[in-house]
Amino acid sequence: MAKIQWKGGTLLSPLPAVLITCRDPETGKDNVLTIAWTGILDSVPPRTYISVRPERYSFELIRKSGEFCINLPNSRLVRAVDFCGVKSGKDMDKFRAARLTPEPSKTVSCCSIAECPVTLECKVFGEQDLGSHTMFLADVLAVTVDESIIDEKGRMAVEKAGLMAYAHGTYFTMGKKIGTFGFSVRKKKRS
Amino acid sequence: MAKIQWKGGTLLSPLPAVLITCRDPETGKDNVLTIAWTGILDSVPPRTYISVRPERYSFELIRKSGEFCINLPNSRLVRAVDFCGVKSGKDMDKFRAARLTPEPSKTVSCCSIAECPVTLECKVFGEQDLGSHTMFLADVLAVTVDESIIDEKGRMAVEKAGLMAYAHGTYFTMGKKIGTFGFSVRKKKRS
Repeated sequence: MAKIQWKGGTLLSPLPAVLITCRDPETGKDNVLTIAWTGILDSVPPRTYISVRPERYSFELIRKSGEFCINLPNSRLVRAVDFCGVKSGKDMDKFRAARLTPEPSKTVSCCSIAECPVTLECKVFGEQDLGSHTMFLADVLAVTVDESIIDEKGRMAVEKAGLMAYAHGTYFTMGKKIGTFGFSVRKKKRS
Repeated sequence: MAKIQWKGGTLLSPLPAVLITCRDPETGKDNVLTIAWTGILDSVPPRTYISVRPERYSFELIRKSGEFCINLPNSRLVRAVDFCGVKSGKDMDKFRAARLTPEPSKTVSCCSIAECPVTLECKVFGEQDLGSHTMFLADVLAVTVDESIIDEKGRMAVEKAGLMAYAHGTYFTMGKKIGTFGFSVRKKKRS
């Protein structure tokens, strides 16, 4: 392959484009915004982060409340995902505008999104200013999973969730399963 | 939807399963390992991270050298991706075992992977111990992109890269394009 060199950029792909919910602790008003600058930081304990521009309306809500939820959208929600990444909650009720249904969370005061099959409830334990964005580091306190994507053994069948991915400005559906962790070294069962 | 509550976990999906290359600065030996705990931390300047268990062979290589590359695999490399996440470079040359070709990077001393269509060359600027994993925070110094995925306008056509995604222990191809950033509020052109 012949390679072209560019200056440094944010080309890591694919990323999760997720719906972040948060609440103004003073007014009790919920908001939702779309974030792709997120990931898992640690397994034990489970820790995550979101990076948010300080200019965004949700920034002070998350900072003041110390809480947010990461809601994983399915691909049918792509229009809402895009809309909540472009518009500000300062001027409108984005739940209503994007036709998303708030529902109570279990361990945090901000709402989750009913239409999302998976939600991670998060409590902030640190923040770091990195330039254009500030990273909120958070513990994942609880996860809620829709019954429709739990299999008969009680495990999450992630392929049933119909999740979407984000890569370099483009939204994609998930394609086909091509392996599971450890398959390359797993011994075949004797017949 | 009826939701089931679980304790906190690392269910954020989909994530990039990427091939990380690094080099022992003392012996000059290159290694490769698979990481899904990665993401973009900041846009300006472009900053990323990887979280690595201290027990892993690559951990001290990255710490000593302060450098690594994030190589984005296409879905044809799924077996190599899985293999490099399961096996340790302490005991073998994983480039050779996984049939990956090292090639020189532009701005860092460790190699890139020739078969990967996109590589982010990274320099560590901080680390944070978070529990089972330590996060290396890094600047993206340069990006190399294969010519085959550059369109006639000189832009990256990410759908041509055939990238893969990782979700809850399962590897997936990318599916179909369902939108581009801003599509939900874009005015239709008059005909």
